[in-house]
Amino acid sequence: MDDAVYMKKAIEKAMLGIKKGQSPFGACIVKNGKVAALEHNRVWEKGDPTAHAEVVAIKAAAKKLKTIDLSGCTIYSTCEPCPMCFSACHWARISKIVYGTRIEDAKKIGFHEFPIHDSTLKDIGRSHIDIRGDFLRDESMELFDIWSSRRDKKKY
Amino acid sequence: MDDAVYMKKAIEKAMLGIKKGQSPFGACIVKNGKVAALEHNRVWEKGDPTAHAEVVAIKAAAKKLKTIDLSGCTIYSTCEPCPMCFSACHWARISKIVYGTRIEDAKKIGFHEFPIHDSTLKDIGRSHIDIRGDFLRDESMELFDIWSSRRDKKKY
Repeated sequence: MDDAVYMKKAIEKAMLGIKKGQSPFGACIVKNGKVAALEHNRVWEKGDPTAHAEVVAIKAAAKKLKTIDLSGCTIYSTCEPCPMCFSACHWARISKIVYGTRIEDAKKIGFHEFPIHDSTLKDIGRSHIDIRGDFLRDESMELFDIWSSRRDKKKY
Repeated sequence: MDDAVYMKKAIEKAMLGIKKGQSPFGACIVKNGKVAALEHNRVWEKGDPTAHAEVVAIKAAAKKLKTIDLSGCTIYSTCEPCPMCFSACHWARISKIVYGTRIEDAKKIGFHEFPIHDSTLKDIGRSHIDIRGDFLRDESMELFDIWSSRRDKKKY
């Protein structure tokens, strides 16, 4: 139930990002029922290829919670975290990832994905992070449809 | 020959970071024989678990070169890029990685590494990035020895 609430926040935030010319990805970090960070992708805004929604949210949550240790936090991401973002979750010791669309969905709309699934990384890196995929996938997919129909869309 | 010059710059920068209480990692990004970024790890300074030397250097190089596309760039890292940093190199389209020590070396001195080698990521993600490992490994290892002997060292 709560998972849906936070994922919808991430979707709304991603939608706001799209309206500002950013890429269609959002992330929400929650600890003990409180939102610690709610961000969208800011690669173009910042001119920073690492400013994915999850990375931006981890930074923000670390700042808000005044610690680099985000144990006990769940991150809700509208798309499956790429290997950079999954590994950022590892370093931040995030406990759980809940995601909507898959890496291959983002690839289909033109992003230059590094195609390694979170489940693969978890297995070979022996990560203890909990993963729930395909959550509100249709609602998350709408972000890609809306973004794809815009004239100002920019891939990377 | 040039590889040694740039790796030594990365080592010197990491040394500077250690003296400022930061973690013992440095990175230098070079394009067409010019240094685009020279950074050390800033996780503690910024309170940001993603502020690894390579990520900080990619941000800086993107800013300096005014593009998120770092094609043609080589990154010299005193330690093998972790999966977050390797994937950040993918997104930034960095052409080549040259590194000193290995992920397991950083693990040995206490860092909570996500133990997946760059060569493994390259294989399963079908990356075209060029990798040269174990370069000036002894010189890079000295950073770990020096850091390990300090009272102010903080692992994460």
